[in-house]
Formats: sequence, C-alpha cells, structure tokens
Amino acid sequence: MATAADSTAMGRAITLAARGLGSTSPNPVVGCVITDASGRIVGEGYHQRAGGPHAEVHALRDAGEGARGGTAYVTLEPCNHTGRTGPCSQALVDAGIGRVVYAVADPNPQATGGGDTLRAAGIPAEAGLLAEEAAAGNTAWLTAMRRGRPFVRWKYAATLDGRIAAADRTSRWITSPEARADVHRLRAEADAVVVGSGTARADDPHLAVRGIEGATQPLRVVLDTEATVVKPGARVLDDAAPTLVAIADDATTDLPDVVRLPRAGRGLSVPALLAALHERGVRSVLLEGGPTLAGAFVAEGAVDEVVGYLAPVLLGAGPAALADAGISTLPEALRLDVTEAVRIGPDLRITATPKER
Amino acid sequence: MATAADSTAMGRAITLAARGLGSTSPNPVVGCVITDASGRIVGEGYHQRAGGPHAEVHALRDAGEGARGGTAYVTLEPCNHTGRTGPCSQALVDAGIGRVVYAVADPNPQATGGGDTLRAAGIPAEAGLLAEEAAAGNTAWLTAMRRGRPFVRWKYAATLDGRIAAADRTSRWITSPEARADVHRLRAEADAVVVGSGTARADDPHLAVRGIEGATQPLRVVLDTEATVVKPGARVLDDAAPTLVAIADDATTDLPDVVRLPRAGRGLSVPALLAALHERGVRSVLLEGGPTLAGAFVAEGAVDEVVGYLAPVLLGAGPAALADAGISTLPEALRLDVTEAVRIGPDLRITATPKER
Repeated sequence: MATAADSTAMGRAITLAARGLGSTSPNPVVGCVITDASGRIVGEGYHQRAGGPHAEVHALRDAGEGARGGTAYVTLEPCNHTGRTGPCSQALVDAGIGRVVYAVADPNPQATGGGDTLRAAGIPAEAGLLAEEAAAGNTAWLTAMRRGRPFVRWKYAATLDGRIAAADRTSRWITSPEARADVHRLRAEADAVVVGSGTARADDPHLAVRGIEGATQPLRVVLDTEATVVKPGARVLDDAAPTLVAIADDATTDLPDVVRLPRAGRGLSVPALLAALHERGVRSVLLEGGPTLAGAFVAEGAVDEVVGYLAPVLLGAGPAALADAGISTLPEALRLDVTEAVRIGPDLRITATPKER
Repeated sequence: MATAADSTAMGRAITLAARGLGSTSPNPVVGCVITDASGRIVGEGYHQRAGGPHAEVHALRDAGEGARGGTAYVTLEPCNHTGRTGPCSQALVDAGIGRVVYAVADPNPQATGGGDTLRAAGIPAEAGLLAEEAAAGNTAWLTAMRRGRPFVRWKYAATLDGRIAAADRTSRWITSPEARADVHRLRAEADAVVVGSGTARADDPHLAVRGIEGATQPLRVVLDTEATVVKPGARVLDDAAPTLVAIADDATTDLPDVVRLPRAGRGLSVPALLAALHERGVRSVLLEGGPTLAGAFVAEGAVDEVVGYLAPVLLGAGPAALADAGISTLPEALRLDVTEAVRIGPDLRITATPKER
C-alpha cells in the first residue's frame, strides 16, 4: 500500500527525472529517491546522459550506507540488463535496499524484468505509484518505444486567423520574444529539430538552442529533397550543433554528411526519415517545418503532439500553418484533445494530442 | 472615501446591471443598490429594457422608505434628462437619499449632468468606484457612444490551423455543442447579428437565439448586396426574430422590408451599414459573417472585439477564418490584446481587442 510519504518521494523522483529531458536519448529520463528505514530522504539521483550512470546508481551513491534497509522510489522499472552500465536491479539488491517502488513498467524488451529480479531476491517491488505523472514526464521515450519511431512534436507559430506569414511572406515577427524563447526550450528537450527545404530556403534557419544554459543541442535535420538548398555557408552547417541533411536517394550533392531517403510525393518519405532518425538514437523530434512538411507528417499519422503559438494578430491573407494533409472533408479531419492552453507573454500556447484512432 | 462596504455594494450593482445585457438598447445596462443609514442593502434594481424604469427607480421602489438617508450605488452616473422616464438624479433627491456613489460618468451628452444636479441639491455624489469593472460590463454601449456606431464583436469558429470549413466546404461541426451553445449567449447579448450573402447562401442560417430562456432576440441582418440570396422561405425570414435585409441601393427586390446601402468593393459599405443600424438603436453587433465580410469589417477598422472559438482539429485545407482585410505585409497586421482565453467544452474561446492605434 502506498502512503502519502510514498507519493511525496515518488513526486520528487519525477521532478528529478525531468532534469534529464533532452540529454538522455536514446534512454528515457529516470529519477530515483532513496529513503532510509525511518522514511527520511537519504539519496537522490537522475539519469543525466546516455552512457552515464542510471538514476538508481546516482541515488545509491548519494545515500551510501543509508540505503540499507531503505526504500528506493524510481520513476521507471529498474533495468535488468547490462549495457554501458550494470543492471540497476542488481545494484539495488547489492545495496541492501529493503523495498522498491516504481511508477512505470519498462516497455523496452531489452531492459524489462527488473521488478522480477528484485522480487526473486526477496525484495518487495511495487509498480504503478504516480504512473500517469511519471509517464507524462517520459512521453517522448514511451511513445518512441511503442511506435518504433521517434515521438514527433509539431510546433507552429501563427496568427489568430491561422497565418504563418503575411501575403508578401513577411513573418518576423508574428509571435512575441517570450514565445520565441519558449521554442528554444522545446528544442532543448528534443533530440532532433526538423525543417523542410521551404523553410531552409526562406529563412536560412540556425535551429540550435540559444539562451538555455547547459542545454544539449539537438541534431539539426534539413530535408533537402533535391539537394539544392543547403549550401556551404548555410547557418545550419555551423558548429553550434550537429546537422544532418536528408536528400532524395537519386539526388547528387557535394555535402559530405547526408542521409539518402526514398522520395514520397514531392518530398521525402516521412516514415523512412523517422526510421533513419530512430536508428541514430533519436527518440524525439521537434518538427519546425513549414506547412508543406507538416502536412506530410499529418498525412502519415506521424504527429504525436501539436504545440501552436497563437499570436493575437490578424492578417486576412498569407500562407496557413498547415497545408495539404490529405484531408478533403470534415469527417476525415484530424481531431485532437487540448492538453494545455497557457499565455506566453502576449501570445497563447496551445498543446494538443491526436485522439487515438 | 470608498470603504470595503462601498465596493461590495457597487460590485453587487455591477452584477445586477449585467442582467440587462442584450435587452436595454439603445440604453446602457445599469445596476443600482441602495443601503440604509446602517449600511444594510434595502433596495436593488437594474435597467431591464428601453422604455422601462431606470435602475435607480427600480431600486428606490424596492427600498421604499428605507432609502431615506441611505446611499445609492449606481454603475453609471444617474441621468439628468427626461426621456420616456423622468431624470433619475431628481428621483434620488426626492427619495431623500443621503449620498450617491457611481462608477462611470455618463458620456451621453443628452443624459450627463446627474452628478452636478445631485451635488447642487447638497447630496455628496462620488464618481469612479469600480469604474473599470463597471465599464467592462457596458463595453458595447460605451464604445457605441464613443464611436458613434454600434460596437462590433466578430465571432468565428475555426480549426487550430485557422480553417472554417474543409476543402469540400463541409463545416458541420468543427466546434463542439458547448461552443455552439455559447454563441447563442453572444447572440442574446447583441442587438443585431450580421451575416453576408456568402454565409446566407451556404448555410441558410436562422440566426435567432435558441436555448436561452427570456433572451431578447437580436435583429437579424443579412447583407445581400445583389438581392439574390434571401428569398421567401429563407429561415432568416421566419417570425422568430426581426430581420433586416440590406441590399445595394441600385439592386431590385420584391422583399418588403429592406435597407438600401451604397456599394463598396464587391459588397456594401460597412460604415453605411453601421450608421443605418445605429440610427435604428442598435448599439452592439455580433458579426457572424464569413471570411469576406469579416475582412471588409477589419479593413474598415470596424471590429472592436474578436471572439474566436478554436476547435482542436486540423484540416490542412479549406477556407481561412479571415479573408482579404487589405493587409499585405506584417507591419500592417491588426494587432490585438488577448483579454480572455478559456476552455469551452473541448474547444478554446479566445477573446481579443484591437490595440489602440
């Protein structure tokens, strides 16, 4: 039975886990809190980066001898496999932990079974405490595990009437400095930032994270189907962050580091792109592309979350935020649930997720 | 000096005033609370409909002898002129009121001066208590007084990507039943509901208020420039509410009751329409027209408030909420301030007002 103290400790572990957002891929974010036999917190830790120690190891080190006979609260089922670090379930056994409470069972077939290992060693291991909150903190990774491709968050910035630029294509700036700063937070949380050739041509975007101390830079990905847009000197090719240019498998380029993908429609295959990124360990993508690319993602059912920055501005003309998504009549519309709507400076940020279909 | 008790009484008067929204035009909404010498509320009233007693008269009747030596709290400066009812300032004097507190000074040149009349009679009369809140409750009327035309609230319902219909023009329903019910509240608050010929042709709309008990039906206004859309049998011509069809001054029609307006662009002159409505005592308009008509209003600077119902739906194609408003580049955009953003069922309702220019 979970007590209020259990919930408090797990809540703390969830908070700790969130500190790893954006830097743990291909691993999940995980937080761990260890209390001693009297219920006092004696150790805390979180998974900071792939290849580094898991949350449990950090917390056990922090707790030292205080862990013996105590309780470990972990946001995700302790792993059971030896990768770049040893299995956490065994580490917990070795430290003499008396009880383990974890929020979410590990869906990763390579890592699952930690709960069983603990129980086999005679240590009570309970699952499910604050599972929903913990899962929310790991949405990208859990989605990637379930779908076998990166979690895709589509971000757009538009006027109240849905325009991303005026008739003459001017678009700087529709949204406020506050909203634009918030986008850098989204970039920092993502493993990769993706734009299409239209955006690359129009904006020569930089796509790196600015203004967030300690942020892990995402992989910058430009879909340049015909290999005609990203040229030496493009801002996206500087050394602020790694960059991947994706081109059609029959296109020719002088760029050294490209990924070749099959064509689909007038662009590149979205599933092939996501598979290539997944293979590189990318578990979350921030799609910052224009309306055409966003339409291709929506048409493929490859948008897991929409984050719209709506500026209180009216234009009456200019391109819409979303172009052809293969939807021609209302019954085919992509319907979502609003999960959050907040003010960001003078603008609104609306977050929504597609209804399960 | 206003006390906490004064604020409480005025707050109550503001609440009472709001009950008249939609049925007092061409008059403002007004609420009145009367307390006796000990501060106890002894009378309440609000202006219910044009031609009926003013708020002060209702409250004085309610208070009876209890008004003598008491305080009257009124959301608007007591009127000083004899219209269909006598001047309220004199009624307050006659009732032996000892003190008058009002929130907003009356900007109507025909009615102003009530404060002076009271003071001349030796009754302390203070202005400004909760003036902002009281003015917010009277926005439409105060705007109409200031601009010499009705207050215009533009309502639209769109997807997250700004579409009001799918590519095949299907639009039933983008927003939820909750949002559609909320629109009836807006209609009930308005003196007139306005649509253009595009909406009239596509939807054969009814435009009357449904589902709100005791609501005053607004004047239904259809801009049918060429007099080709509104035919006998149109739903808007039933007897649920009064209807005005506006046609070009050179168009021919068999309809008995039309107003003729000068042409402007491909439609009718928006200022001429608003002047015609103002002359008929319309102080607030709910613009429910489609993107073309809304564009014409925005182009004329004739939108005072925007109410957007945003459904968490993506289409990627279909008409946008706002069409040509004469804005071709971002610096010319109409910029607004968001005054409210709330959930209405699964949808969002965003209210915004143009920045003063």
